Amino acid sequence: MTAPLTSLIASLPATVPFVGPEKQERDRDRVFAARIGANESVFGPSPMTIEAMQRAAPDMWMYCDPNNHDLREALADHHGVPPESIVIGEGIDGLLGYTVRLFVEQGQKVVTSAGAYPTFNYHVTGFGGELVRVPYANDSEDPDALADAAHRSGARLVYIANPDNPMGTWHSAERIGRLIEAMPAGCLLCLDEAYIEFAPDGTAPAWDAADPRVIRFRTFSKAYGMAGLRIGYAITAPETAAAFDRVRNHFGVSRMAQIAALAALGDNAHLASVQAGVASARIRIGEIATANGLTSLASATNFVAVDCGGDGAFARRVLAGLLARDIFVRMPGAAPQDRCIRVGAGRDCDLDLLAAALPEALAEAKG
Amino acid sequence: MTAPLTSLIASLPATVPFVGPEKQERDRDRVFAARIGANESVFGPSPMTIEAMQRAAPDMWMYCDPNNHDLREALADHHGVPPESIVIGEGIDGLLGYTVRLFVEQGQKVVTSAGAYPTFNYHVTGFGGELVRVPYANDSEDPDALADAAHRSGARLVYIANPDNPMGTWHSAERIGRLIEAMPAGCLLCLDEAYIEFAPDGTAPAWDAADPRVIRFRTFSKAYGMAGLRIGYAITAPETAAAFDRVRNHFGVSRMAQIAALAALGDNAHLASVQAGVASARIRIGEIATANGLTSLASATNFVAVDCGGDGAFARRVLAGLLARDIFVRMPGAAPQDRCIRVGAGRDCDLDLLAAALPEALAEAKG
Repeated sequence: MTAPLTSLIASLPATVPFVGPEKQERDRDRVFAARIGANESVFGPSPMTIEAMQRAAPDMWMYCDPNNHDLREALADHHGVPPESIVIGEGIDGLLGYTVRLFVEQGQKVVTSAGAYPTFNYHVTGFGGELVRVPYANDSEDPDALADAAHRSGARLVYIANPDNPMGTWHSAERIGRLIEAMPAGCLLCLDEAYIEFAPDGTAPAWDAADPRVIRFRTFSKAYGMAGLRIGYAITAPETAAAFDRVRNHFGVSRMAQIAALAALGDNAHLASVQAGVASARIRIGEIATANGLTSLASATNFVAVDCGGDGAFARRVLAGLLARDIFVRMPGAAPQDRCIRVGAGRDCDLDLLAAALPEALAEAKG
Repeated sequence: MTAPLTSLIASLPATVPFVGPEKQERDRDRVFAARIGANESVFGPSPMTIEAMQRAAPDMWMYCDPNNHDLREALADHHGVPPESIVIGEGIDGLLGYTVRLFVEQGQKVVTSAGAYPTFNYHVTGFGGELVRVPYANDSEDPDALADAAHRSGARLVYIANPDNPMGTWHSAERIGRLIEAMPAGCLLCLDEAYIEFAPDGTAPAWDAADPRVIRFRTFSKAYGMAGLRIGYAITAPETAAAFDRVRNHFGVSRMAQIAALAALGDNAHLASVQAGVASARIRIGEIATANGLTSLASATNFVAVDCGGDGAFARRVLAGLLARDIFVRMPGAAPQDRCIRVGAGRDCDLDLLAAALPEALAEAKG
């Protein structure tokens, strides 16, 4: 007899939706030719970051600094906020888990959008919170609906990604500012800005690191090309930041990630080149869509939602056709957004493969 | 007004005992000359591991494989257990947190030894469990007392490290086997084997990866010299292992750590050289103790508890004297073990510094 799980854990699904491309490759027994499905940055980490990692490799016998001191100082300087407002964690995923654990009692409500980031939902359910989902409006998360739902449900947290994943759409800083203002007392806005470096100026609200109503999440996984190192950060009011110290895995961020992140922050030229590469790729993906009689959504991220022109079942067939042709892409999970496939900002070589495969996949899906 | 914490989180201490040597160095405004206080392996990662990390650095734009497939297969092969029995996690620390979360309801009891691994206690308290502490017996964790306390308290988990941290003592596989047999129904033994590679043959029980009464923890942080990468694993019954999938951060282990661990497993020569280096260092630390009129405890780990011959206050003064002389060491937190300081298995250069500093620190502590 195995030891009994807690009642909460016993109530959770035994299977989870996290399937990596490596598993798909194992199941297919063939690797993908283009890996543009997980919102990773195919442009890679900066050369300075790579060099810092290589130099640091022999030092990996040492634990990380559990205070993340140097990186917090550098980020504080970078953003013009006090270091006491910064929490470093094992990616935004890890930080979202801690956030739910800190603020959500079992049975309490948490508001998000139907079809938004599933890992956030995983954490909410995992700690016994109850999700309240509001629909997207015109393929964007709907700040008014989120605020309304928070008031109606007495929610403890509201989640919004700006820019949004999986659609790539975005709101202005001004509209996000109004959402912050509309938060009920005692409810915290989780503002996921994982893709903010790809968004136009005016998308991120000005920093008010003393504002207790919002916790903002940033990452080195996207524009900085370090998804494989697991490091992100939250910026929030110092008293909120301090609460993470009660529960976080204090040695949980790797020393390698700390060192790489510091180096990455210092290479603005690489960041600019990634931003330019992503901007070009978004245009090219739009052109490929048009050439195939499809539309694509304007994107402020490193991926583009391509509307396949049918329903979810049709888009799933298109997706299957691309996967069969060794193009790793994914798609939104909820209707009506699931009429789209989500294509990552690839290099020219990746998008050449997409351009060649998409007409065949579409023909197959129609036939 | 900030958002209110859950009642459990609000009840937790706001400050935590995790102070890294980097913080001490910042406070002193001087770096340590010998870093032999955190049970790290000063002998470093294997050259093959270092090379694997350096080669992998440019690929860090890719997320890890959330299934940890290749490493689980390699570990299954290494230990002769099924891959379904293996859980990879963010160090033993991370895995202990998940274990408590899976099995301990708020208010339920968990048994450990007074003065044993504080991070385990941190997780138990953090999820609302209630710690039952039994004393060490002759500087060893006491299996009989642990089992008795589990029966008396109705505990859900029992923690034991074999070999032990902070004392370095150990029990035979046979005695641990009897502890497993003595576990109450529905109570899981957490057997922390972080230091097992430094222990004599006959310390680790034979694998029974189907045994639902025990979960064994191993790490790449100690003998493999990869503390800074945050990767460890648990081996347990497949149904227990599967439960971790309900709560773990699926992308929480870095791709770098996965790659480094795979390389480390393949370098037996380095492991043997670390084991030899640690064995020599333990002898040398014993000699340094003897030369100063002190005794040291036999150790099956990569550190040695040196009995300073007085009480906790005296040992703390010795420790302070060593720190002031740029030797980073730590000491047990509970009496009577706190009559000792804990000295890591250093290289010759580290232990030369210790040999020079200890007489002065002792004289100062006596004076």
